[in-house]
Amino acid sequence: MSPVPERHLLVIFGATGDLSHRKLIPALWELHKHSPARGRTVILGLARADLTDDAFRDQVREALKNEGPEHAAEISRWCRDSIYFQSTGDGSAAAFERLKARIGAIEHAEGLYGNRAFYLALPLPAFAPTVEALGHVGLHRSKGWTRLVLEKPFGHDLGSAQALNALIHRFFDEGQVFRLDHYLGKETVQNLIAFRFGNALFEPLWNRDRIERVELTVAEELGVEGRGAFYEQAGATRDLLQNHMLQVLAVATMEPPAALDGESVSNEKIKILKAITPIRPEDYVVGQYGAGELNGKKLKGYREEPGVDPNSVTDTFVAVRFGIQSWRWQGVPFYLRTGKRLPKKLSRIIVTFKSPPAAVFNPYIVCGMGGNRLEIVLQPNEGFNLSFQVKLPGDGMRLHTQEMRFRYAEAFGHLPEAYQTLLLDVMHGDHTLFVRGDEVEQAWKVCAPMLDGHRELHTYAAGTWGPPRAEQMLAEAGCCWTDPS
Amino acid sequence: MSPVPERHLLVIFGATGDLSHRKLIPALWELHKHSPARGRTVILGLARADLTDDAFRDQVREALKNEGPEHAAEISRWCRDSIYFQSTGDGSAAAFERLKARIGAIEHAEGLYGNRAFYLALPLPAFAPTVEALGHVGLHRSKGWTRLVLEKPFGHDLGSAQALNALIHRFFDEGQVFRLDHYLGKETVQNLIAFRFGNALFEPLWNRDRIERVELTVAEELGVEGRGAFYEQAGATRDLLQNHMLQVLAVATMEPPAALDGESVSNEKIKILKAITPIRPEDYVVGQYGAGELNGKKLKGYREEPGVDPNSVTDTFVAVRFGIQSWRWQGVPFYLRTGKRLPKKLSRIIVTFKSPPAAVFNPYIVCGMGGNRLEIVLQPNEGFNLSFQVKLPGDGMRLHTQEMRFRYAEAFGHLPEAYQTLLLDVMHGDHTLFVRGDEVEQAWKVCAPMLDGHRELHTYAAGTWGPPRAEQMLAEAGCCWTDPS
Repeated sequence: MSPVPERHLLVIFGATGDLSHRKLIPALWELHKHSPARGRTVILGLARADLTDDAFRDQVREALKNEGPEHAAEISRWCRDSIYFQSTGDGSAAAFERLKARIGAIEHAEGLYGNRAFYLALPLPAFAPTVEALGHVGLHRSKGWTRLVLEKPFGHDLGSAQALNALIHRFFDEGQVFRLDHYLGKETVQNLIAFRFGNALFEPLWNRDRIERVELTVAEELGVEGRGAFYEQAGATRDLLQNHMLQVLAVATMEPPAALDGESVSNEKIKILKAITPIRPEDYVVGQYGAGELNGKKLKGYREEPGVDPNSVTDTFVAVRFGIQSWRWQGVPFYLRTGKRLPKKLSRIIVTFKSPPAAVFNPYIVCGMGGNRLEIVLQPNEGFNLSFQVKLPGDGMRLHTQEMRFRYAEAFGHLPEAYQTLLLDVMHGDHTLFVRGDEVEQAWKVCAPMLDGHRELHTYAAGTWGPPRAEQMLAEAGCCWTDPS
Repeated sequence: MSPVPERHLLVIFGATGDLSHRKLIPALWELHKHSPARGRTVILGLARADLTDDAFRDQVREALKNEGPEHAAEISRWCRDSIYFQSTGDGSAAAFERLKARIGAIEHAEGLYGNRAFYLALPLPAFAPTVEALGHVGLHRSKGWTRLVLEKPFGHDLGSAQALNALIHRFFDEGQVFRLDHYLGKETVQNLIAFRFGNALFEPLWNRDRIERVELTVAEELGVEGRGAFYEQAGATRDLLQNHMLQVLAVATMEPPAALDGESVSNEKIKILKAITPIRPEDYVVGQYGAGELNGKKLKGYREEPGVDPNSVTDTFVAVRFGIQSWRWQGVPFYLRTGKRLPKKLSRIIVTFKSPPAAVFNPYIVCGMGGNRLEIVLQPNEGFNLSFQVKLPGDGMRLHTQEMRFRYAEAFGHLPEAYQTLLLDVMHGDHTLFVRGDEVEQAWKVCAPMLDGHRELHTYAAGTWGPPRAEQMLAEAGCCWTDPS
């Protein structure tokens, strides 16, 4: 991997949309401001609207309005020198021919060699026609490299994911495709790799002999926040479990890859996804929030949200117990849960280690003999907590649980945004933090039982940790969810 | 172990001496103030001087003068009700008969049942005659329990230790003898036991497969501070290595004991001491400090100190490499060093784990691939530091060493003094934190080569980390002492 990416054109479909404004433009500006990518990217924004280059540049400046006046001049220079706009109009073949011509003209003017990345910041239904149109005008190949970036949802279920992958592969090789899961770009998720394979300390413990169970919680305090119509088509399983959470699980549990490159890492992640045991009805709970209360505020139920069917059966909560059939993980339960309108926003992995044999300490123990616990906090306030037992000072040998803590922010200050990391990886052609086509399809297979129309939907009060059935599932195994204090 | 000790008489030989005033009396007062031992101990101070009970009580009050006026009344009450004095005069048989009569009188007056502990706060040459005199007047037995407490030095070498143990065993069973090593009473050393056997996390790593090397440093900033004449008879090997450091090493490396009792723990410690490989001349370095400088202050050399022979060959520094021949430790080097006039006062164990296979991260690493390190700080500011590798935020996968920290004082505030813990253990008859006779003898065997008169003595400048030869010993093995930052 060269530290300086080759010069290239980044073509953004949906450049006037929410994702572009909130994530892509700020990330591209950060990369321009201070990274090896400075001056290596020419941006061509696309949208249906008929904007001039300058009108789009105004939008870019608007998206960066919090940057502070000291950056204004440089932002304007960046817009003028590196940012263009082109309308895709009705998406017709003619429009794509005009796009092709414009790309050629910009590359000629900018002295680019034909390296191109197409970023589809579009809703799912627009993926297929866009890919097809690019292919039909021959934009899937160039003198340089051509890369295609897509974001989730990668399909709606196994069948649609297979169809989408098949279509993409009619024009693009898998090596050209970057399926972006922004969770994988988070510093803490990347750090899972450093943590596991850069330390001799944890890997010997990272297996069925030492680990009692693993929990992964991705909790949202918010409800659907005006995006009810979109969420009706998704639900918690599709929106978070199938992609982000299974990816994090795979990174946390995979075998050491042969190298840190896309092929090697995907080869290990797919092994995990294939080793997940088929889910039985008793292994999962889907729920939907009803009315409730949090911090003294009354909250509407999901079915009362704008844009939501009053008889909706969309899941806003899912909890599932996975097993992984491998030498490393056989017999260890993995408990995953995610939901909206939970008491607190947080994402974290909790690894509970087996208890040591207690015999040595009998009968001195008065404070319990807790197992050790490693908490990997993905957000907010990213870091690690390692719980361990120490002797309580004073008479006798009484044990007490204490924590060693590490917080990225304390060590390093502000962390880069996931999109910054992932856009730079696209420029470098590095697939390590992206999702391969077979992973997407396998993840849909894993989730299929939970998407079944006949599943039982449990209601939970907004502001609670989900339906009681989700607690019961763990209680039956003699444990409970580790709720944050 | 009952939480309340049986009522007993504590007879302190050398009650007017330094150890009594600085350590024993404050510890006994603390135990009286707030512990299950309150009101269970009657104290009989002994010394050659002819003092009245009240004159000795004045000394006790003087030893506690920093306690603050709010405790004055209770200290006076404690002295009046529970503290007596008796002169041992010339130490003759007649003096010991008088002592025996006095003990009987006090026990009668106080309603005690004959439980007695004799604490020998005496210099080494006084041990044998005192033990013998106690035996001759029959004070080694009573209706209740009789215990004998001795502090290091337990002999001067293997022969003298064997002779002392043999004499003691003429009168006392080993179960009556408490050889006190105050390092074992430190909370952090006790915590080694909790840390190792109360956590499932560390024990799987605690062996030759995972550990690269172990260092134990006990550094003193002070010189001999007016105790030159005493120190001339001791030296660093006798004063610290043979007892405190070998005990800490044994606790850190022993197998899990069958139970936390004296017999079980000593059985494991003696296994370690016996498994230490014989030391060859290239395995150790003894040194003596010459003139030097620390923090801008000129410092005298050892031979210029008052009470020290100008041609002295006493060691004020010793560094040694041990191997332990066992399934757990074969091949792991243990580096121990202690010295006076080093740059800083500190005691700590550093466990360096083996490096993980680096292959996965090539060629991304720019910050080095340090092994993990566990630092167990015994003093000052007791606690743990666990170093591990995290990903440096930003582009690429660069590793950086960070620390998780735990400090007892932050979690628990003030820690009890070692003497408090150990005196209470004597009252309970709990040998767990004491040293058995065979351990003492074996530790002298281990140290014998370093006490040889023909050893080479290296000079080092006061205020440095010892002679260069001590650095070289590790450099030859491709590593170096982990000097505190």
